[in-house]
Amino acid sequence: MIDVTLLGCGGMLPMKNRWLTSCLVSYDGSSVLIDCGEGTQIALKCAARRVKPIEMICITHFHADHISGLPGLLLSIGNEGRTEPLTITGPKGIEKVVKSLCIIAPNLPFELRFAENNEFAQYMMKDLIIKPFKVRHTVDCYGYTIELSRQGKFDPQKAVKNNVPKCIWSKLQKENECLYEDRLYTFDMVGGEKRKGLKISYCTDTRPVQNIVSYVDGSDLFICEGLYYDPEKRSRALKSGHMLFCEAARLSYDAKVSKLWLTHFSPALTDPEEGLTLAREIFPETECGFDGKSITLDFDD
Amino acid sequence: MIDVTLLGCGGMLPMKNRWLTSCLVSYDGSSVLIDCGEGTQIALKCAARRVKPIEMICITHFHADHISGLPGLLLSIGNEGRTEPLTITGPKGIEKVVKSLCIIAPNLPFELRFAENNEFAQYMMKDLIIKPFKVRHTVDCYGYTIELSRQGKFDPQKAVKNNVPKCIWSKLQKENECLYEDRLYTFDMVGGEKRKGLKISYCTDTRPVQNIVSYVDGSDLFICEGLYYDPEKRSRALKSGHMLFCEAARLSYDAKVSKLWLTHFSPALTDPEEGLTLAREIFPETECGFDGKSITLDFDD
Repeated sequence: MIDVTLLGCGGMLPMKNRWLTSCLVSYDGSSVLIDCGEGTQIALKCAARRVKPIEMICITHFHADHISGLPGLLLSIGNEGRTEPLTITGPKGIEKVVKSLCIIAPNLPFELRFAENNEFAQYMMKDLIIKPFKVRHTVDCYGYTIELSRQGKFDPQKAVKNNVPKCIWSKLQKENECLYEDRLYTFDMVGGEKRKGLKISYCTDTRPVQNIVSYVDGSDLFICEGLYYDPEKRSRALKSGHMLFCEAARLSYDAKVSKLWLTHFSPALTDPEEGLTLAREIFPETECGFDGKSITLDFDD
Repeated sequence: MIDVTLLGCGGMLPMKNRWLTSCLVSYDGSSVLIDCGEGTQIALKCAARRVKPIEMICITHFHADHISGLPGLLLSIGNEGRTEPLTITGPKGIEKVVKSLCIIAPNLPFELRFAENNEFAQYMMKDLIIKPFKVRHTVDCYGYTIELSRQGKFDPQKAVKNNVPKCIWSKLQKENECLYEDRLYTFDMVGGEKRKGLKISYCTDTRPVQNIVSYVDGSDLFICEGLYYDPEKRSRALKSGHMLFCEAARLSYDAKVSKLWLTHFSPALTDPEEGLTLAREIFPETECGFDGKSITLDFDD
């Protein structure tokens, strides 16, 4: 079971009624935060989410609206009593940028670890697999997919065939492996084929490039930027490395995702819902994000 | 005429219903901002104050709740079109700290100038004189006074006595000096003794040391921290270099200020007004600050 909360849905400038785009993904008592603009720690409070369980912070790029809240958040995490290490991932240079910002957060009670994204990178948080993927903005920028795989169904016939003692069947399903009478038994000796897991994708700021479709393919939830909805803003979106609602919808259609949440709205968009009709013509399962919007994703059946 | 707006009144951590302590002082189309914690640029929007006129930012110390909003604010000032230089004052090391934070605000369209506080420092913004003064916190920390002096009344007898031609009397009052028929006339040739001006003082975070009384003496408005009101919190205030409401009230009484606004409340104080009675026993003109509280100060009569 994965909880996803869109903490804010504003782009470029923090506003008095809209927090900057950032997203919290929580699983089994731990959280991954994607992006951390100014005010993100307050957005977390508004959404009634705790900061101590944050184990990983994934930064998309180094524009201030995606990272300026980091020193304050790290201090708050420390105030809440975290002592376990925390990993920060991001584009090349992430360690230098974070350390530079942390000149005002010099004595954190936990270790900061850093991971630079590249095309082969993937990170684990408990059973979640987090993969960065390159997008196209005015600076080096990454989207992220977060996946939870699901093991196959227990198959008693396969267990019998593989001579797995009945007394460890239950344990094997819970713990994946089990040592019994000096022999190691593994789940694949009793399990059927892997079943569909869960996948969440997050992507901002970027033009709608093909690489996005390949990575977010089949997501249960795709959180994607839509800076403007008006087609007349296309040249501005092109110039600033951003997307229109209809471009995000097209990506969602091509990538066969289940649901699209638009986010990272221009401060000029007072009511993003006005742009939904256009986007739904291309991808009907489009919704506008809003601060605090959340969903719990669970396996089918 | 000086406008003073308390943008936020929270200490330590930004909260969902209370911005971090910072103060905007506006005069003749220009502004001085004192302190800039996370969210200050949003607090400015909430208080309907523009950021472009900010000519000077005075930082009290380098704890995150007083400076972490700086890169975002500077970017916003740039977005609003400022091209004139902006001065940032603060404790020793201010340039290094700001430049380190500004790794995410690399291309500002205006020049940043820096001034390190010391006991002789004083800064001018138009006719305002801004003086930092040392306070006692857990790190190097300064309060600030902002003063506007007022010239004496025009005295026609003195003008006649000093042979000032009647045709330049009016100009001399407006412009302070005037060249007429190859002779320089100055206001002191026609003006009486200087009259009481205006003085605003701001001071957080600190213990109530004597130096504060000397500097804020006779202020029209004294904005001062009060982290707690409960006398049982005295040892905590002592340890963390902060003040109780009653200590701020005592400073105000000793310094003969006209009015005290308390600010920088602990996140644990949900209703600071509950502590007012205690403070008013010592200094009746005590008020609790709140986000957006403002006042216009003008010369007497």
